[in-house]
Amino acid sequence: MAAHFALLIDPAASDDARDDFAATFTVLDPSAPALSISELSTQRGDGVFESIGVVHAHPQEVGAHLERLAHSALLCDLPAPHLEQWRQAVARAAAACGAGESVIKLILSRGVEHGPAPTAWVTAAVAADNSVARAHGVRVVTLDRGIDAGAADRAPWLLLGAKTLSYAVNMAALREAHRRGADDAVFVSSDGVVLEAPTASVVLRLGDRFVTPAVASGILHGTTQISLFEHLAVQGHRTAYETVPVRTLQQADAAWLLSSVRLAAPITAVDGVALPVDRELTASVNDYLLSPRD
Amino acid sequence: MAAHFALLIDPAASDDARDDFAATFTVLDPSAPALSISELSTQRGDGVFESIGVVHAHPQEVGAHLERLAHSALLCDLPAPHLEQWRQAVARAAAACGAGESVIKLILSRGVEHGPAPTAWVTAAVAADNSVARAHGVRVVTLDRGIDAGAADRAPWLLLGAKTLSYAVNMAALREAHRRGADDAVFVSSDGVVLEAPTASVVLRLGDRFVTPAVASGILHGTTQISLFEHLAVQGHRTAYETVPVRTLQQADAAWLLSSVRLAAPITAVDGVALPVDRELTASVNDYLLSPRD
Repeated sequence: MAAHFALLIDPAASDDARDDFAATFTVLDPSAPALSISELSTQRGDGVFESIGVVHAHPQEVGAHLERLAHSALLCDLPAPHLEQWRQAVARAAAACGAGESVIKLILSRGVEHGPAPTAWVTAAVAADNSVARAHGVRVVTLDRGIDAGAADRAPWLLLGAKTLSYAVNMAALREAHRRGADDAVFVSSDGVVLEAPTASVVLRLGDRFVTPAVASGILHGTTQISLFEHLAVQGHRTAYETVPVRTLQQADAAWLLSSVRLAAPITAVDGVALPVDRELTASVNDYLLSPRD
Repeated sequence: MAAHFALLIDPAASDDARDDFAATFTVLDPSAPALSISELSTQRGDGVFESIGVVHAHPQEVGAHLERLAHSALLCDLPAPHLEQWRQAVARAAAACGAGESVIKLILSRGVEHGPAPTAWVTAAVAADNSVARAHGVRVVTLDRGIDAGAADRAPWLLLGAKTLSYAVNMAALREAHRRGADDAVFVSSDGVVLEAPTASVVLRLGDRFVTPAVASGILHGTTQISLFEHLAVQGHRTAYETVPVRTLQQADAAWLLSSVRLAAPITAVDGVALPVDRELTASVNDYLLSPRD
């Protein structure tokens, strides 16, 4: 859905002497021209972002998203975002959300070319209806991400752990998945290790254990996956970060794509081969993910 | 330099019945807000671009740039740009350029989220002064691109041959090069093959032959490199596209980074080890590249 609320943030005015950052915000008409053609976000995908799920005007896991925004900014040599300023901007955007599910996006761009400071803004929109994906699941295809599992450590300039605005490959992977008759993709390394989906984390159930690919492989640390693992641990389940060969995904007892807005979508097939779906567990996981979380 | 001219193009109005596309152009104030925050170029780096060198108001190699724009659009499943419409837009932008060197940028974005059509625009700006790089050269460091040389063929969704707006990694590589005390970077594949610089092609002189990495490795086909090879062939030199191991670059008789605006910058050192510089040849190459080319 198109954004119904947008707030420009002035990162240059984020001094610690301030308690209330309202004076550093400007409400925008989300459909009106707001950005210069010299914006480096638009010219080079040069910036970082977050998407926060919102349920009945409650933004979920804001702290984890802000931490990841700061981590992405660090990897991209962007000025550190002032977290309290962003927290207040998220609260403003959440207050503009109604009942039901919404999505708040945070964007921190390197700013205008040769400009003095980053450009930053927050938007709110009604979320797409994800009930079908949650209830009936998604068919995925595995797609080679080109890199090997060691690339992230070896080559930090590849920004593999940063959620950057340079998302063209993620979008191309989704189109390729659709071309192959699937709903989504799972990236695998050139040496056959499961990484992540273009816009989601992968979680598997292997017997009585819940496993997600190790973050050292250069994938994003999923905020929803972290939240789910905490929930599973409280319920007495074992969770682990591991190197996951593609074969392990194909033979999992169940698997999900986890993301902030679609939440838990059970994987029903991998490359055309059916995977078992645990409907009861999926429903209970989504009930948890739809409950207010901080 | 900041753009001094900007023209919005309406790709939806590019019907073949038209000879004159002026009515599909809107002149923009380049420093005023022009783009919506829902632009997919800004949210996801989802679009393609070209940078055209302009010398004394003459845009260089417009045909080759427009062909590459169309090729990039095809790889990204974007609607094919109407080349005559873009050619006229480039001519309008060139007419706004003065004496000396300028740069015209073409941007074709997927458009506003859920929108009906791409967004497209052209800008003109005075070029940075590249005389030092052309005369005194650039020190480069080799940086691992994470992918192996076969990834482009195997995984077209990696968009390795497309000039997309998702340029965050290219910018991060330049920052890494500066951190290491160099001026620029040369990407190499994880299996040790020279690919390209973040914003330039690599050309080597090996004895009496001029060699550039084979485009099959998933690199952009450089418009300036193509133009230079045509010029060298006319002059009786041998040129070739080959697989170039890193060692071959380190032991080249001379090497250059070639790009549309900086033109030929001789490589003076690779990873801190000096490379011979052919000043006379470099000057003659840049004289050619600064002459009007179509």
